Amino acid sequence: MPGKVFLVGAGPGDPELLTLKALKVLRNADVVLHDDLVSAEILKLVPATAKIQNIGKRCGRKGITQQEINALLVNYALLDLQVVRLKGGDPLVFGRAGEEMEALRSARIEFEIVPGITAAFGAAAAAQIPLTHRDASSALVLITNHQANHPSTHNKSEWPTSLPSNATIVVYMPGYGYEATAQKLIKSGLDAATPCAIISHATGEDQQVFQTNIQDLANAPHLPAPTLLVVGEVARFASDSALVQFSLLVPVSVEPEFRFENLQNQESSE
Amino acid sequence: MPGKVFLVGAGPGDPELLTLKALKVLRNADVVLHDDLVSAEILKLVPATAKIQNIGKRCGRKGITQQEINALLVNYALLDLQVVRLKGGDPLVFGRAGEEMEALRSARIEFEIVPGITAAFGAAAAAQIPLTHRDASSALVLITNHQANHPSTHNKSEWPTSLPSNATIVVYMPGYGYEATAQKLIKSGLDAATPCAIISHATGEDQQVFQTNIQDLANAPHLPAPTLLVVGEVARFASDSALVQFSLLVPVSVEPEFRFENLQNQESSE
Repeated sequence: MPGKVFLVGAGPGDPELLTLKALKVLRNADVVLHDDLVSAEILKLVPATAKIQNIGKRCGRKGITQQEINALLVNYALLDLQVVRLKGGDPLVFGRAGEEMEALRSARIEFEIVPGITAAFGAAAAAQIPLTHRDASSALVLITNHQANHPSTHNKSEWPTSLPSNATIVVYMPGYGYEATAQKLIKSGLDAATPCAIISHATGEDQQVFQTNIQDLANAPHLPAPTLLVVGEVARFASDSALVQFSLLVPVSVEPEFRFENLQNQESSE
Repeated sequence: MPGKVFLVGAGPGDPELLTLKALKVLRNADVVLHDDLVSAEILKLVPATAKIQNIGKRCGRKGITQQEINALLVNYALLDLQVVRLKGGDPLVFGRAGEEMEALRSARIEFEIVPGITAAFGAAAAAQIPLTHRDASSALVLITNHQANHPSTHNKSEWPTSLPSNATIVVYMPGYGYEATAQKLIKSGLDAATPCAIISHATGEDQQVFQTNIQDLANAPHLPAPTLLVVGEVARFASDSALVQFSLLVPVSVEPEFRFENLQNQESSE
């Protein structure tokens, strides 16, 4: 069997949010090259015979360049191996899959893309926030606040030139510079009173959700990374039960018996 | 066990793109209420003991209102049933899940959302189009060209007020009014030369991809619905092999031996 590369989305964190195809591909892998964001529970699904290599580029780690990652993919495939490039969320947004695909095409390596649940959809599902709403939001915009790691080759800002006002905006990798982010959102045309939700560790057991709005964003607590920032009228709809775990920091105004019911239901559905 | 409603994404078409959680929930369902877009192959995964009901609102069918759907969900849950509301793609975009969630909250019915691969991500994976690209696109915008079914309650256009120029735009339910869509895209600030790809039956065995640009969009063939329109520099990156099935209509300029190789690889991976 000739070598082949699978660019696979690992989803937002919860291993049950892998697709059936991603699981099948992982179980047949000879080599798995993964990002930092891929959870240990998901890596447990890889057969013991496969080589697992963390090629994450997180701050603090001695950097592996995108060119080196591309070369790894090509070289493993040329050894006739089944290579899985496993990325958090979906491989095709904010994941530099475009460059990996170009390298594979140039080397005439067969490849296939297996989509994954991107963080915005996982977070919205877990926090029960509709991403569009007939009365509140007619579009969804995914953007990143992340500055590319290689300023020498790519020093332009990734923030879009303008943002539609009747949309839901999800900011990936928002960081903790909330005041600057709020200013950018307002400069892009959004109203300062627009609701926001910060979601930390989306779909994980330790998920936390904090509700605020653009003008108060600078005062928001620094929830543990990875986080997502959801901006738009729909952020109001986050469920009370999603906020429960954060109740020490944010008093949640729900009827006690309703909240208790939610907690019971959560326990019984485990 | 008390009744519970699961709002579940069925993904873009290919049953292997269901999540593990969606499959688990479907296998435990007592009732499955699904849209027209959910494929027969996915419905085959539902146990024979469960009731399956198509509540799609496609043109031509005598309409079921959103209020009636909400009432069905509530009433089945009050009978202590495990109810799956199965939607094509992801339940939280362009799916009116917001209204269903409000109805369930009002009725104090427990519910859970299981995200799915939305059509844009399925289509991009199958056509090998990166949705963002370091050199070409820094954001992803999902919009719909669909006019709501109930003009009496909702007659405003769903098209956003402005669109960022350095983004990938995916238009859901673009219909065949390509000339009007092209005009709207240009009016929103996009350049007439921006590349486009029309993707029909994304991730299905009969998927077709047609490449064009905004100014030539009006001349594009009417591929079978459901279709998606991808607009942005990244649409150039659609793979030659994704275009092969459409080669009778569009001559594809690839070296014959390369194309042959692609076809062989496709066959061997089936």
